[in-house]
Amino acid sequence: MQSPHPWKVKLLRVAWAAVEMTLFRGSFHTMSRWRSFLLRCFGAHVGRGCKIRRTVRIYYPWNLTLGELCIIGDDVRLYNLGQITIGDRVMISQEAYLCAGTHDYTDPSLPLLTPPITIGADVWICARAFVGPGLAVGEGAVVAACGVAVKDVPPWTIVGGNPAKFVKQRAWRDQTTTLGPGQK
Amino acid sequence: MQSPHPWKVKLLRVAWAAVEMTLFRGSFHTMSRWRSFLLRCFGAHVGRGCKIRRTVRIYYPWNLTLGELCIIGDDVRLYNLGQITIGDRVMISQEAYLCAGTHDYTDPSLPLLTPPITIGADVWICARAFVGPGLAVGEGAVVAACGVAVKDVPPWTIVGGNPAKFVKQRAWRDQTTTLGPGQK
Amino acid sequence: MQSPHPWKVKLLRVAWAAVEMTLFRGSFHTMSRWRSFLLRCFGAHVGRGCKIRRTVRIYYPWNLTLGELCIIGDDVRLYNLGQITIGDRVMISQEAYLCAGTHDYTDPSLPLLTPPITIGADVWICARAFVGPGLAVGEGAVVAACGVAVKDVPPWTIVGGNPAKFVKQRAWRDQTTTLGPGQK
Repeated sequence: MQSPHPWKVKLLRVAWAAVEMTLFRGSFHTMSRWRSFLLRCFGAHVGRGCKIRRTVRIYYPWNLTLGELCIIGDDVRLYNLGQITIGDRVMISQEAYLCAGTHDYTDPSLPLLTPPITIGADVWICARAFVGPGLAVGEGAVVAACGVAVKDVPPWTIVGGNPAKFVKQRAWRDQTTTLGPGQK
Repeated sequence: MQSPHPWKVKLLRVAWAAVEMTLFRGSFHTMSRWRSFLLRCFGAHVGRGCKIRRTVRIYYPWNLTLGELCIIGDDVRLYNLGQITIGDRVMISQEAYLCAGTHDYTDPSLPLLTPPITIGADVWICARAFVGPGLAVGEGAVVAACGVAVKDVPPWTIVGGNPAKFVKQRAWRDQTTTLGPGQK
Repeated sequence: MQSPHPWKVKLLRVAWAAVEMTLFRGSFHTMSRWRSFLLRCFGAHVGRGCKIRRTVRIYYPWNLTLGELCIIGDDVRLYNLGQITIGDRVMISQEAYLCAGTHDYTDPSLPLLTPPITIGADVWICARAFVGPGLAVGEGAVVAACGVAVKDVPPWTIVGGNPAKFVKQRAWRDQTTTLGPGQK
């Protein structure tokens, strides 16, 4: 097998794996600023005020762009072999899986493909939901618990099921606040 | 952020997290009585003869009521931010997820909601199934493997799929035994 | 409870659990030959050139038959209470779950059933997909990410959704290679 990953990336991966297993995973529940710092050391763009749980799994920090005031819950898997870009005030709940990696299944050697994922501002990816490679989840959208998005999710819509389908529109109840998740 | 959890609950959570990571998670596979005892120390009601695997994740033991002769399998997640009440002889298989917590997605600050979950006697929640917040699963019902219940499940029905739909009625083959799961 | 497992199997299980937690799980990412060796020591048939990640969970190695050049990804669960037979050049992606165990839900004591699973050559079981007890996944088939197979999957078809349904046919783009996954 010819690895698709050059030598330098392999070294970075080993270094990140070591840091993730120790300093990241071993840090205390509330130490999100420390974990944001560690991710930035490895090339991630992480906005201010993000809460990133210690059990989050991030494959390549250098392929992660995270807006402000985001919450990334326990056991979330950001499989960012390709770039994952997440807007402001996004909440990603426990066990959600953003999968920016797949294979060309028409070729017997199953070459790796890494189409990027883009998540708009004010999105909520609910518990155990899945967002497939190459997708865009529009601003303000919700992927319901266990929902499996296999195509783009339009802004301000709620989708659910497997495959995920339109459930209803989403709107703020009122416009008296501009706070993000957990900010009131 | 103003936490929705008062000071005393926070202290309990830290204490439980420490106990869970060590005495609970580190106990031997067969030591279900020990794990039931630990849960009771933290306010859970646990009936006699329950088998609770060491990899089960229970968030707030004080929000758990468990009947007799239940089996809670490996990697089950009881996300009991709200109360979870489980009847007698219930089996919850591996990786099942009972999620008694959600957010008001019509408010930008996404305030936490904790609608309770109620599971009737003789229910089987199969592997990797999901039961959403506020739901009741009626006596004798089955949520099939990977089934995602998003509304109440009527008694003695089998539901499956995502979203879970009615598959067929359930009935005992004969009435010669009143034993629970694993009791023959 | 009368365990369905005789004394010898129980001893083997404890031994395997100890080996899995230490020598298997604790081995380095790239040491697939070592992990294949450990599985063979416990009775598994593992073909040459398989890549088995250190986080794979295999219940009973003695119930596993694995062809050549297979890839078993991170956090895959092979719940082989019954036999699981996997052909050559099969890829099983992260968090996929092959579940060769169930219960007779028409009997209150829920006796264990262990119908075998058979996976044909050149199959791809995608991330977080589920294959239920007693099923056969035909040669060259694909179960899409999060797909939940509840009946046999015909050869060279792609199925997805929960429950999994036919999506389209699969075919190689050309026949210039006979390599397996990751072999180019």
